[in-house]
Amino acid sequence: MSKIHVAIIGGTGYTGVELIRLLSCHPYVSISHLTSRSEKGRKVSEIFPNLHGVCDIVYSDMTDDVMDEIGKVCDVVFFATPHGVAMNHTPRLIAQGVKVIDLGADFRLQDLGEFGAWYALEHTCPDVLTKAVYGLPEIHRKQIKSAQVIANPGCYPTTAILGLKPVIDVQNGADKPLILPNIIIDAKSGVSGAGRHAKVNLLYGELSENFSVYGVASHRHSPEINQGIHVFLKSKFTQKVRFVPHLVPMIRGMFSSIHLTLTDDGKVLNWQEIFEKAYEHEYFVDVLAKGLLPDTRSVRASNRLKIAVHQDDEVLTVLVVQDNLVKGASGQAIQNMNILCGFDERCGLGVDFGGCAVVP
Amino acid sequence: MSKIHVAIIGGTGYTGVELIRLLSCHPYVSISHLTSRSEKGRKVSEIFPNLHGVCDIVYSDMTDDVMDEIGKVCDVVFFATPHGVAMNHTPRLIAQGVKVIDLGADFRLQDLGEFGAWYALEHTCPDVLTKAVYGLPEIHRKQIKSAQVIANPGCYPTTAILGLKPVIDVQNGADKPLILPNIIIDAKSGVSGAGRHAKVNLLYGELSENFSVYGVASHRHSPEINQGIHVFLKSKFTQKVRFVPHLVPMIRGMFSSIHLTLTDDGKVLNWQEIFEKAYEHEYFVDVLAKGLLPDTRSVRASNRLKIAVHQDDEVLTVLVVQDNLVKGASGQAIQNMNILCGFDERCGLGVDFGGCAVVP
Amino acid sequence: MSKIHVAIIGGTGYTGVELIRLLSCHPYVSISHLTSRSEKGRKVSEIFPNLHGVCDIVYSDMTDDVMDEIGKVCDVVFFATPHGVAMNHTPRLIAQGVKVIDLGADFRLQDLGEFGAWYALEHTCPDVLTKAVYGLPEIHRKQIKSAQVIANPGCYPTTAILGLKPVIDVQNGADKPLILPNIIIDAKSGVSGAGRHAKVNLLYGELSENFSVYGVASHRHSPEINQGIHVFLKSKFTQKVRFVPHLVPMIRGMFSSIHLTLTDDGKVLNWQEIFEKAYEHEYFVDVLAKGLLPDTRSVRASNRLKIAVHQDDEVLTVLVVQDNLVKGASGQAIQNMNILCGFDERCGLGVDFGGCAVVP
Amino acid sequence: MSKIHVAIIGGTGYTGVELIRLLSCHPYVSISHLTSRSEKGRKVSEIFPNLHGVCDIVYSDMTDDVMDEIGKVCDVVFFATPHGVAMNHTPRLIAQGVKVIDLGADFRLQDLGEFGAWYALEHTCPDVLTKAVYGLPEIHRKQIKSAQVIANPGCYPTTAILGLKPVIDVQNGADKPLILPNIIIDAKSGVSGAGRHAKVNLLYGELSENFSVYGVASHRHSPEINQGIHVFLKSKFTQKVRFVPHLVPMIRGMFSSIHLTLTDDGKVLNWQEIFEKAYEHEYFVDVLAKGLLPDTRSVRASNRLKIAVHQDDEVLTVLVVQDNLVKGASGQAIQNMNILCGFDERCGLGVDFGGCAVVP
Repeated sequence: MSKIHVAIIGGTGYTGVELIRLLSCHPYVSISHLTSRSEKGRKVSEIFPNLHGVCDIVYSDMTDDVMDEIGKVCDVVFFATPHGVAMNHTPRLIAQGVKVIDLGADFRLQDLGEFGAWYALEHTCPDVLTKAVYGLPEIHRKQIKSAQVIANPGCYPTTAILGLKPVIDVQNGADKPLILPNIIIDAKSGVSGAGRHAKVNLLYGELSENFSVYGVASHRHSPEINQGIHVFLKSKFTQKVRFVPHLVPMIRGMFSSIHLTLTDDGKVLNWQEIFEKAYEHEYFVDVLAKGLLPDTRSVRASNRLKIAVHQDDEVLTVLVVQDNLVKGASGQAIQNMNILCGFDERCGLGVDFGGCAVVP
Repeated sequence: MSKIHVAIIGGTGYTGVELIRLLSCHPYVSISHLTSRSEKGRKVSEIFPNLHGVCDIVYSDMTDDVMDEIGKVCDVVFFATPHGVAMNHTPRLIAQGVKVIDLGADFRLQDLGEFGAWYALEHTCPDVLTKAVYGLPEIHRKQIKSAQVIANPGCYPTTAILGLKPVIDVQNGADKPLILPNIIIDAKSGVSGAGRHAKVNLLYGELSENFSVYGVASHRHSPEINQGIHVFLKSKFTQKVRFVPHLVPMIRGMFSSIHLTLTDDGKVLNWQEIFEKAYEHEYFVDVLAKGLLPDTRSVRASNRLKIAVHQDDEVLTVLVVQDNLVKGASGQAIQNMNILCGFDERCGLGVDFGGCAVVP
Repeated sequence: MSKIHVAIIGGTGYTGVELIRLLSCHPYVSISHLTSRSEKGRKVSEIFPNLHGVCDIVYSDMTDDVMDEIGKVCDVVFFATPHGVAMNHTPRLIAQGVKVIDLGADFRLQDLGEFGAWYALEHTCPDVLTKAVYGLPEIHRKQIKSAQVIANPGCYPTTAILGLKPVIDVQNGADKPLILPNIIIDAKSGVSGAGRHAKVNLLYGELSENFSVYGVASHRHSPEINQGIHVFLKSKFTQKVRFVPHLVPMIRGMFSSIHLTLTDDGKVLNWQEIFEKAYEHEYFVDVLAKGLLPDTRSVRASNRLKIAVHQDDEVLTVLVVQDNLVKGASGQAIQNMNILCGFDERCGLGVDFGGCAVVP
Repeated sequence: MSKIHVAIIGGTGYTGVELIRLLSCHPYVSISHLTSRSEKGRKVSEIFPNLHGVCDIVYSDMTDDVMDEIGKVCDVVFFATPHGVAMNHTPRLIAQGVKVIDLGADFRLQDLGEFGAWYALEHTCPDVLTKAVYGLPEIHRKQIKSAQVIANPGCYPTTAILGLKPVIDVQNGADKPLILPNIIIDAKSGVSGAGRHAKVNLLYGELSENFSVYGVASHRHSPEINQGIHVFLKSKFTQKVRFVPHLVPMIRGMFSSIHLTLTDDGKVLNWQEIFEKAYEHEYFVDVLAKGLLPDTRSVRASNRLKIAVHQDDEVLTVLVVQDNLVKGASGQAIQNMNILCGFDERCGLGVDFGGCAVVP
């Protein structure tokens, strides 16, 4: 199979570099362009010496000429940029026939009002937004195949939506609710989730040996989780999500503890079995055997998300772990690209498919 | 004021060494004995060189003779030992007129059946247990003054009970519940909470850059929290506690996120004000100003516990931080000793009282 | 090409698990046996859940029957065991036609007296020791091809010998010494180098936020480095090595700072060029461009070793970094296996050869 | 004794905040002013919540009016600022009768040419520089007593000069050198040494689990160490210093390994005894018993510097540890202030003198 050509816009942040790392092992992909405003003209391996001999491309500036050339040469373009960048370039790229995968937030919230409220920006291409597909393969595989623009999900929403899907699906088939309306999502993330930005609060001296909370009900991923439950999973009953994200002194890893209260109808079900059955055919979702306890290093550098289910009378605790930079960002973007391009979904992401075993 | 004499049984674990560190700054205390089976005959400063010039006592073995001498010489004896040790020595020590403060679990659960069920041990002095006081000064200050035996609270229960006290107190004065029965306590602890034991799962190589959960509804602190709510705070309504403890890659620090669902009666109250008022006279409990977000390093090495309250319609999130080795163990033990001995409660524990400022 | 069969003796330590991780990506290797006394009967992925779906072999006990079966089935056997284990099994295995690669120390020191002095053991198969090849491919590639038993080098000696090789080689061609006799090797290692042993001094609570030294001139790698310089590199002049190993609060990574004083003859040479030329054909040794400064994460999880050379009048500083578990142990063992078995030396160890890009 | 008044210029960096922490425990000091350009108008405890209840002063801007008021009110002014700030304010302050202690570099290098060469600045008050005293109490105690301006030493030079002093002193009394001219200082520092600056290379995501070198023979502390040896210790023989600083993934702590080669005259001396004798009356310098190995956590948050001496035939290894923010900066500044003001040198810096025991 001949290789496709891809570009990564924003190639110096943590998700951009992770894309480079993973795509370098992909059997059917050739990276043709990397852009960076701050590092234009320098080799990627000069700034990230671990990539020396793996990827030695020179960063381009993000000029019109460069973007035009990318539009001509590339099959897929990844935006690993802050929100507000991808929407300015996507209309032209898709007009050139390119597929766009945005790891930022520009195409995640399908409600324009919500987008404006949470991101304080007016959307520049609402028509493209309408056609964009929310790229969570485990729920939108079919739509992804034929998408032009894919909104790669946020890291927290990935854990929340996949952790809740079996519950909402079963409840949608019931007459009465199986869980109380309040869903508590107590989430914890490694610091790479905050990006590679020069900020005092992200310094080693501020974060090592320190655990903190960084938002109670005010994080932009709250409306995205809510959209996942009500729009994508089509929850029959209204759920309220209480999302509290914490910061863990580690680079990679995300751990979401989802606390649910079961109704009488919910209590009698065997949730371990329900979860196992729900994901039995999903390569990248692993439901742990009953009683096992997850940790983040078991998915470090891997595209696999693991779920443990603990049921105790009326309480159901769903524990979800992933690498925030892989299944929570760049790995999932590649999974989306594989579906889009007709490759095996696991290409570049599993030991037997050109990926690597996890470094714990 | 002449100094009292104290002994620390079990002086090589993290809470024992923390007692030594803190008591070395206490103006009215002289440590006369330290025991350790594994390190008997060696100077404490040989094993913990940071204490060189601060405390150079030689560890004694825990023989009958030594314990007898301790009973004669000491005013207060601290047990910083695993459960099952203090109960074997306490009856004799109190017969000798000594006050005992147990940092272990022997006198925490007042129900003998619960003790047996959770610790798999028969209690050897149930009569002493009956008289022991649960040493949480903010709720039992009066009883502590005249106690002979003090059960120093577990680290998690300290955060849970102090985080819930204002809620339960106000609810006890109401006709109908203010919160739903389920209380979710999503707790996170630094690894010193697991003790200074030679175990593979506590190695640096296993824990660095790794976040994990280590028990869902199965931790021994669950019944202790339940006892706190129903026996000590005398909750008028039955509450169910869902306690999920996680492990953070850091040495010290504990962060408990308490998630409550308010009833219609509860929603109309101003919980920020209720908490501020509840603790306005407590030196060691600090209610953060509205909107502030806590982190563990702000209480590192300090006996202060901080609480933040976030109310959002029907959800109330109470965030509690402390140093698990100080307010969660050794600092609180000294606070108890101060009350017991008639010292200012803050002696040795605050900048103006012979203690030190926090090393963040 | 059909796959070879390999066994790993001691499959629960850090180097054993790293062998599993790396060999799982190797195109021509099938792991047939893993042994562990402590975990016999359990699946490897039960203890190391990151390997779930990658390797699910059940650990065998190390009985005579098992060893006999391994001897019959396997082409190569890796010993990832403490010293004193491999030498008891190797004679029989090679009699069965198996190649042995020992990651422990049994075959590293070719002088029996040195072995006895440093390891306090009598060697059980001195005749096999005589034939064993010290498996540093960059100096012994030819001998490795035809070896029966390979002594995989220690982690520190790998950095020291490769960091000194260009200096000793050039000096061997000179009439007078180019460096003063004293070679200072100030080395720093991540804690995985100390093994996965239940010891208090290896706990997270003892090592995080702590930098220490753990031996001055008393480490077993001192005689191995000395042997490398004088026996393998055949130094014409006598060098004295001062080796001081330190412990860094991180899991993986090794950084050796080699401080040399140049003689007048040595000062006039261009050492940057000498090093570049020395390693220009070595895939796994990367000499950094002039002025660059190395760090350990640039080689994390990689089999590449990087060297920076800083010359300043009469001082020559050679800085060497590697991942102690890969080029310093398991990766090098696989490099040796590749040579032994006639595979491309890079198989399973590079992005284009079935390995993975570095996770920084 | 009535309290003196002090101001801290630059109160938001790591050394400024450490001064606040330590001075808050000092029995004879009252902080009257804190300045910060970026945080003017905010309470210190708002930004550093660990100081809540310990220090709640509001930051002032560094305007002429504020500086003038400081000059009138304060006895001592600390500059915890980057180089180039203190020299602009010191002449006026000393004219007002204030004593100045500069934790920056403005008065460290007494040679104007060296200052200009290393700091790329013209000195604005060379006459003040001439009178400034280099504040290393263990060598300049007498001069400090009567100083107007004190140059607080750099962190690395503190370890280097105190680690070398006994050697240079003894050598000065000998006819021939005791050590070879080359002194290797292989130093390792926690990241707080790089300051609290918003820089990508200081992020948690860049530094955790990573050990690096950050300068070979190019660090500004090189000329300061050289000045210490030749100007302050008046070395009779010329020594060349090779200083290589490394960065350790931890917040606090500094470890300098000094590698010396002894001459025949040097080999016959007992260096353990020489060091013990040299520092027997120094409270803040602790020479470890023979054979002991230091670590940084044993001096964490302490003003004590520890030295271990390992002699092996012709090699002498001197290992020096300190907390870079205490003995390496703010603690030493307070030690200097104590001498200057006639207080006990240990005030605020030791368990029995209003300081605290080390938090390891």
